[in-house]
Amino acid sequence: MKATSLLHLRNLLQFRTQCRGNNILSQEPSGPKMKTEIPVRGFFGPKSKQFMKKLEKTQNALSTIFVLDVEKSIGNYAVDVDGNILLDVYEQIASLPLGYNHPAIQKVFQDSKNLSQLVNRPALGVHPTPQFIKQIDQTLLRIAPKGLDYIQPMMCGSCSNENAFKAMCIWYANKYRNGKAFTDEELKSSMYNKPPGCPNISIMSFEGAFHGRTFGALSCTHSKPIHKIDIPSFDWPAAPFPRYKYPLEANERENTKEDEKCLARVEELFHEYKYKQKPVIGVVVEPIQSEGGDYHGSATFFQRLQKITKQNGAAFLIDEVQTGLGATGKFWAHEHFNLPETPDIVTFAKKFQTGGYFAKSEFQPKQPYRIFNTWMGEPAKLLVLDAVLKTVKQENLIENTRKTGDILLNGFKNISKQYSQLILNVRGQGTYCAFDMPNVLTRDKFINQMRNAGIQIGTCGDITVRFRPALIFTEKHAHIVLDKIIEVAKNF
Amino acid sequence: MKATSLLHLRNLLQFRTQCRGNNILSQEPSGPKMKTEIPVRGFFGPKSKQFMKKLEKTQNALSTIFVLDVEKSIGNYAVDVDGNILLDVYEQIASLPLGYNHPAIQKVFQDSKNLSQLVNRPALGVHPTPQFIKQIDQTLLRIAPKGLDYIQPMMCGSCSNENAFKAMCIWYANKYRNGKAFTDEELKSSMYNKPPGCPNISIMSFEGAFHGRTFGALSCTHSKPIHKIDIPSFDWPAAPFPRYKYPLEANERENTKEDEKCLARVEELFHEYKYKQKPVIGVVVEPIQSEGGDYHGSATFFQRLQKITKQNGAAFLIDEVQTGLGATGKFWAHEHFNLPETPDIVTFAKKFQTGGYFAKSEFQPKQPYRIFNTWMGEPAKLLVLDAVLKTVKQENLIENTRKTGDILLNGFKNISKQYSQLILNVRGQGTYCAFDMPNVLTRDKFINQMRNAGIQIGTCGDITVRFRPALIFTEKHAHIVLDKIIEVAKNF
Repeated sequence: MKATSLLHLRNLLQFRTQCRGNNILSQEPSGPKMKTEIPVRGFFGPKSKQFMKKLEKTQNALSTIFVLDVEKSIGNYAVDVDGNILLDVYEQIASLPLGYNHPAIQKVFQDSKNLSQLVNRPALGVHPTPQFIKQIDQTLLRIAPKGLDYIQPMMCGSCSNENAFKAMCIWYANKYRNGKAFTDEELKSSMYNKPPGCPNISIMSFEGAFHGRTFGALSCTHSKPIHKIDIPSFDWPAAPFPRYKYPLEANERENTKEDEKCLARVEELFHEYKYKQKPVIGVVVEPIQSEGGDYHGSATFFQRLQKITKQNGAAFLIDEVQTGLGATGKFWAHEHFNLPETPDIVTFAKKFQTGGYFAKSEFQPKQPYRIFNTWMGEPAKLLVLDAVLKTVKQENLIENTRKTGDILLNGFKNISKQYSQLILNVRGQGTYCAFDMPNVLTRDKFINQMRNAGIQIGTCGDITVRFRPALIFTEKHAHIVLDKIIEVAKNF
Repeated sequence: MKATSLLHLRNLLQFRTQCRGNNILSQEPSGPKMKTEIPVRGFFGPKSKQFMKKLEKTQNALSTIFVLDVEKSIGNYAVDVDGNILLDVYEQIASLPLGYNHPAIQKVFQDSKNLSQLVNRPALGVHPTPQFIKQIDQTLLRIAPKGLDYIQPMMCGSCSNENAFKAMCIWYANKYRNGKAFTDEELKSSMYNKPPGCPNISIMSFEGAFHGRTFGALSCTHSKPIHKIDIPSFDWPAAPFPRYKYPLEANERENTKEDEKCLARVEELFHEYKYKQKPVIGVVVEPIQSEGGDYHGSATFFQRLQKITKQNGAAFLIDEVQTGLGATGKFWAHEHFNLPETPDIVTFAKKFQTGGYFAKSEFQPKQPYRIFNTWMGEPAKLLVLDAVLKTVKQENLIENTRKTGDILLNGFKNISKQYSQLILNVRGQGTYCAFDMPNVLTRDKFINQMRNAGIQIGTCGDITVRFRPALIFTEKHAHIVLDKIIEVAKNF
């Protein structure tokens, strides 16, 4: 496409935005529309292929699905450089809260009074700005899980978890140090990575968990060997996470046993690692194991896990990097569990467009420079988050997610009845839905055929299809997805 | 200040920008100007204090120096919320390349054709955009150290180092696996953090080094105990880094011995860790140890270090997070060393406004998802970087840094002659300068008095004063700094 026609299209889009205000849905195409053929691996039209050839000169580009046209993509629809229009229920690995080119986010960048905040990225740990201090109070504090009033902005999911882990370690040491000063031996040994300064303590995570890919986060990640192989790791324990039988209502007894088995192993690991003199000082868990295969745990499981963790003197960290910000039908997914008390720390990233964590104030280190880095987050991203949160509130998007999620989930259940050999273990909360397929080849073939039908979906685990639409995904979009699944399943 | 007068000031600034084009220096105040009194710890005028009280409700704010007015700050001058105007030679911990509110960066956000790239943050690993692919080629590849044509954008300095460490581990395993597939034992053990899947290998770093604060990066950081204490760490070796006597020309023999001592220990540690069955697979080093105390190594030291590293089959990673992008008088600080060959990997962040690394193509994993995360960098930041690099080129800012650096360094040397009990060990390259003071109390008192005189400087190590001005810092600014140092030294 020539530059002039691209310019024309952009002007048209801007014009439409101006005319129709915030109603982004009215700017969407009426449905997906495919132009080019899609090979089995990935999704390359001729223009995507050309771009990929360039990218492959400098990068491993094997994970690429297609080259995105960010200018033409709109609302729930991703457009690729070949002009294919896809209804996107994966949304940049669950990281876009309001779909593409949302007017509320556009306004953040168009408003000249935001310019100096966009242009000057400060080192917030030494030079906070009045606007940032206001953002902490009026943007972040308002969404804080109850009682978690220590707020630490960060950059991405991995560094949010890494720093939350550090906060747990510091909290634990502080508790056992009982107000005493660091000893000389601690100070000296720490400089050479040795105990007692760098203590032999551990963080418990779960088989199938995903918490990021930096060395600390990766030591708590157990989703796929390719993420971990060849990388040194901390000897930290991994407990089993429930693997339920579906439908839940027909498998209550067995699933309760599954909870018990997992929790018994959690208790064992607390003891084993205490005995090994590498005590577990914190437990990190996703409310729904996502990258690992969309595995859910019951409210009872989480309630008891929190209790066991507390009994063992450890901190309880819930990683809401993927689940946070409304997609499950509640703002935080852990709100579904009716926990006896708020978790100690909750991490976030992805849809928030920036990372960070909320914690109980006892997790705030008493000394400066212990949780610290150059940027400590970014005010520009908090401007975007503020616009997102206001839109979510104004447009009742969490309620929308609950309603649309019901349609999606019930639809999957009905299709699963008809195609019971193909679509298995339907599960979900809000639009945060998934089902399994019989094996990896079938799953990958299905995903490819869905792309050919104009639906961009994600995968997780070995055999799972995961849905992560934006919060502006409505009943109409849900029906398009359901119809296309039936169409593909029919001819499979 | 009322909203209307703030608005007026902003409009005035914008008007001045429009009138005077890119010449930001003409918009600067004529010099620093202080309004409020500064207590010894930190820098709080009454308005800064008010803001800090708010921030302290949710954060540990003990590292705060002052609350920054990003709207009024301009060029080399930081303005605080109390109206104090400081000549800033620390620049947000060395992270602002062009000072405050530079028109070239403002234009990035004002240009409506950038809007969709600013609004839609893609998951670049699965959906790169044409603009991003162009940025890789025309922005990043152009500054790549010779021969390093594998480019991996990241988010910040820590995650750049963490992922570069991973790339070294994968490269090493690949070399010894010799094209064979992963074994079942490797795959299975990796899921539980155990060898052989998660191997017992190590990365060598240096005493006094700083490479970040996430668990992997922190295991290579040895600058201050407060960064490391209470956090579990990998048992990885730390070698001594040269501690030279100044002036260099008068201490050649002793400093050569210092190099030899350090390099001998590097060789020993390679052997020790091989014997321990935790072989060193990579060495990570800063061209100038910055956070640790602005310690320089000679070209010979770095040449021989690279040679020893290669002889031991390990990878050689230079961390240019703080030194990269021109401040030392060359684009990359390691260009000063005339290394026999390019380092294997070079990491960057800070002034680049985003993170990442350049590597030899053999450090590119063959499989997807090994070096991966949701965002994999950010196109919006690369737009800013592109504007910065163009300005650096157009305005010969690296040459400027060389010239201004000479004035600064020679000035410090002269002052050091006059105040030889106060200002010690003057050293630097370009404007990347430092000197020591007799002890920490004197240093902190000096920094505070300099702030009172309107100069914002940084510290590092225990007794060091570090200068990290922006690249637009000129001869005029250097003389203001030198004059103020003399003024403070006189009355000390």
